[in-house]
Amino acid sequence: MSKNTAGNKNIADSKVATETKVTMDKIVALCKGRGFVFAGSEIYGGLANTWDYGPLGVELKNNIKKLWWASFVKQHALVVGLDSGILLNPKVWEASGHVGGFSDPLIDCKGCKTRHRADHLVEAFIQRKSKGKPNAEYGGVALAAVATMEDALLSKYIADNAIPCPCGKSEFTPIRKFNLMFKTFQGVTEESADTIYMRPETAQGIFVNFKNIQRTTRMKIPFGVGQIGKAFRNEITPGNFIFRTREFEQMELEFFCREGTDAEWFTYWEKFCNEWLLSLGVRAENLRIREHSADELSHYSKRTIDFEYKFPFGWGEISGIANRTDYDLKAHEKASGISQEYICPQTNERFIPYVIEPTFGVARLFLMYLIDAYTEEDLGKGDTRTVLKLHNALAPYKVAVLPLSKKLSESAREIYADLSKHFSATYDESGAIGKLYRRQDEIGTPFCVTVDFDTLDDGKVTVRERDSMKQKRVAIKSLKKYIEDRVGL
Amino acid sequence: MSKNTAGNKNIADSKVATETKVTMDKIVALCKGRGFVFAGSEIYGGLANTWDYGPLGVELKNNIKKLWWASFVKQHALVVGLDSGILLNPKVWEASGHVGGFSDPLIDCKGCKTRHRADHLVEAFIQRKSKGKPNAEYGGVALAAVATMEDALLSKYIADNAIPCPCGKSEFTPIRKFNLMFKTFQGVTEESADTIYMRPETAQGIFVNFKNIQRTTRMKIPFGVGQIGKAFRNEITPGNFIFRTREFEQMELEFFCREGTDAEWFTYWEKFCNEWLLSLGVRAENLRIREHSADELSHYSKRTIDFEYKFPFGWGEISGIANRTDYDLKAHEKASGISQEYICPQTNERFIPYVIEPTFGVARLFLMYLIDAYTEEDLGKGDTRTVLKLHNALAPYKVAVLPLSKKLSESAREIYADLSKHFSATYDESGAIGKLYRRQDEIGTPFCVTVDFDTLDDGKVTVRERDSMKQKRVAIKSLKKYIEDRVGL
Repeated sequence: MSKNTAGNKNIADSKVATETKVTMDKIVALCKGRGFVFAGSEIYGGLANTWDYGPLGVELKNNIKKLWWASFVKQHALVVGLDSGILLNPKVWEASGHVGGFSDPLIDCKGCKTRHRADHLVEAFIQRKSKGKPNAEYGGVALAAVATMEDALLSKYIADNAIPCPCGKSEFTPIRKFNLMFKTFQGVTEESADTIYMRPETAQGIFVNFKNIQRTTRMKIPFGVGQIGKAFRNEITPGNFIFRTREFEQMELEFFCREGTDAEWFTYWEKFCNEWLLSLGVRAENLRIREHSADELSHYSKRTIDFEYKFPFGWGEISGIANRTDYDLKAHEKASGISQEYICPQTNERFIPYVIEPTFGVARLFLMYLIDAYTEEDLGKGDTRTVLKLHNALAPYKVAVLPLSKKLSESAREIYADLSKHFSATYDESGAIGKLYRRQDEIGTPFCVTVDFDTLDDGKVTVRERDSMKQKRVAIKSLKKYIEDRVGL
Repeated sequence: MSKNTAGNKNIADSKVATETKVTMDKIVALCKGRGFVFAGSEIYGGLANTWDYGPLGVELKNNIKKLWWASFVKQHALVVGLDSGILLNPKVWEASGHVGGFSDPLIDCKGCKTRHRADHLVEAFIQRKSKGKPNAEYGGVALAAVATMEDALLSKYIADNAIPCPCGKSEFTPIRKFNLMFKTFQGVTEESADTIYMRPETAQGIFVNFKNIQRTTRMKIPFGVGQIGKAFRNEITPGNFIFRTREFEQMELEFFCREGTDAEWFTYWEKFCNEWLLSLGVRAENLRIREHSADELSHYSKRTIDFEYKFPFGWGEISGIANRTDYDLKAHEKASGISQEYICPQTNERFIPYVIEPTFGVARLFLMYLIDAYTEEDLGKGDTRTVLKLHNALAPYKVAVLPLSKKLSESAREIYADLSKHFSATYDESGAIGKLYRRQDEIGTPFCVTVDFDTLDDGKVTVRERDSMKQKRVAIKSLKKYIEDRVGL
């Protein structure tokens, strides 16, 4: 290797793999420092747990969405796509049960006036009493069953056990239901007739279009409809960075099938989702499937599983699959008076299909893949590096072009301009090459292309691979193919 | 050509180009019938001009967004991306002027109680009086100046000229300002302290992140930040199908440059936008640029142009470029108390940059490209076809696989499965080949691949090109390359 070529062979050779302790603080700092995620409205002191996706974050998020769409919609012979509105006729939410039932049970402490979710108080109490044992239970109530307890039972349990507010007192107001839907007013008055809601889930937009989609695509049961979009929930306690926010993005599939085949399709989508999640590079030991117990199931669900990831703050849901049965289509048929039946073209049989619903939270996958990729490596001799070992398909930039000196800018920029036609690429000339490599490692760029003084003579550049830090001289004219063979387009 | 091979050579030969009269009715019918656009919440009687994008619509819309992002952000060396929230701290909208000034002047007819926009009444009156002449003017007021008239002047003009309500009477209430922002409440009460707004434009999300983006990307002025996202305006009179809706999607770029270079960059982006619009296949004669007159400019703008398309209902804005000067960053600096200055790394000079803002409405481009592509062809012998001559990059499906008989399903499905890994593809076996071709023509699929009985022997398929209807036998093993060479990936 000529003294003019880039990088340090010793560093690659002396690489030592080390176990990384990933904390939320480290992830938040990386996100903020490198432009993945900023606090929303930061110059105005923020707005309760809102987040904006910066230049790198938007690329990572777009990659997740693009890959989901490709696997679940575009390349899946049984699935088509949809993009329905955020604002729907309020009758949709009456029929779906959201106006009546989509609410949290709130109580105020009469001592310190703090507002609590009654179910959360009870859950925390049972967990304390059962000291983290599996299948936690106390006073005849199982932890998993709290979510479905009636208000009267919650109040009674709190009183009977004198569950205290963190302020010490145990005197609360009666439970007040607080609907999670954001409401707004359409038209020129704020009368209740004009009250509409920001959708709390994308699913209903698919259900109310079921007949239109079936009619225009002439798809036969079984078939699915996929959608990616924003949804809004007025959560009382958002938190854990981008994990729980009031504004969030869902990737949802409603798969319509015949009753009796629903269990089988549930298994199909469980396997499909599991394989898809793993295919983008998350360690299997950090992923688990949790089956909902019978008393934990939503009113519309026959079976539900959650895919959970081991976040630094504990296991958290990143995806779920629900067997929604024919609940939603039947509810809309009843409320709208318009038949939601499917007519089998072979048998002329009419029936309302069952629905299997795999759902993913975009921000939760974003956080999961970021955390799972986050690595701190001790390279020996006091040298360390932080590297995001993101799957190539997820990496915001596939390739970075780095001139060894600003004198090489012109040639390097030409290479960058050419590569950026084919790959998501970046260019950086603001520092010594070692520092430039570290920056790209930290944002997960799989390949660095270094232009050095030899390049001008031999028409070759040094390509350095992120994880192994191995370097190879590649002719400029073969560069596109070299990278394409390794990362795809 | 064997009798078993697909299609009809005569049709291609006898093709006659004809002038198509495109009406909104035809476009709406196509959209609804083929799954481009459905009325929102249709089974509940809809919701005032909301629309959902069906299986084909979502692909066309995604293509527009993907192509914009590629040209304006990913491949542009001076631009990075952002994805900021829909919910922002309300102080953002106070500083930007939206809380105080983003409103329509409304009046009610005292006779029939109909609510009107006062400025629209005046505009329609001037147009009637000047009988469609260019530079319309009446009673000393130019048509273009109405949008910026003060409320008192509007009221006086209406009274002086006794402008009537369509009901005949000319007696109106005083003007009442109606803010166009949708408001909602965050948290558990509906007190004004918790009032927040759904963003009426994506631009402010970029401005409030200016410092974060510059810091983390270390971009130097001039540079731009691009964003695609939903915005909401409580329009009194939405209409013209998807042209004006309360929920809509913007593709916005804020380009930060030094004062004094702003006029030059305005010209750069004007040319860039114009070329981009044309590159996706819209006829130049249907596109025009309209310069805003001095009295029509927004309070923040030094210069504004609109790109307008000749819709069936008249010329309508599909894109605009504004020179927003340093108005927004200065306003946020003042309101937040946080410096929005850029420090030039060469000269250490501190300044607040000027901003050139090219904006596109996604749905408006969608409608424009659809209308411009819509063609009805008389093929002679009483045969006609409707064909969407969409640019290949915009077409929802690049290729359709069509077996000549259901007996060929297995082989055709294999070809489909293979092609759909590389292209957006569809499969159809539900009819005679002529009918299948017409269906694909109508949704703009550039290539149809027909599998016939000869295919089983010679390993070749018939590839039919949408516009010319020319057919060619292509070996299955060369199919991917054949299509790739013609449509890209």
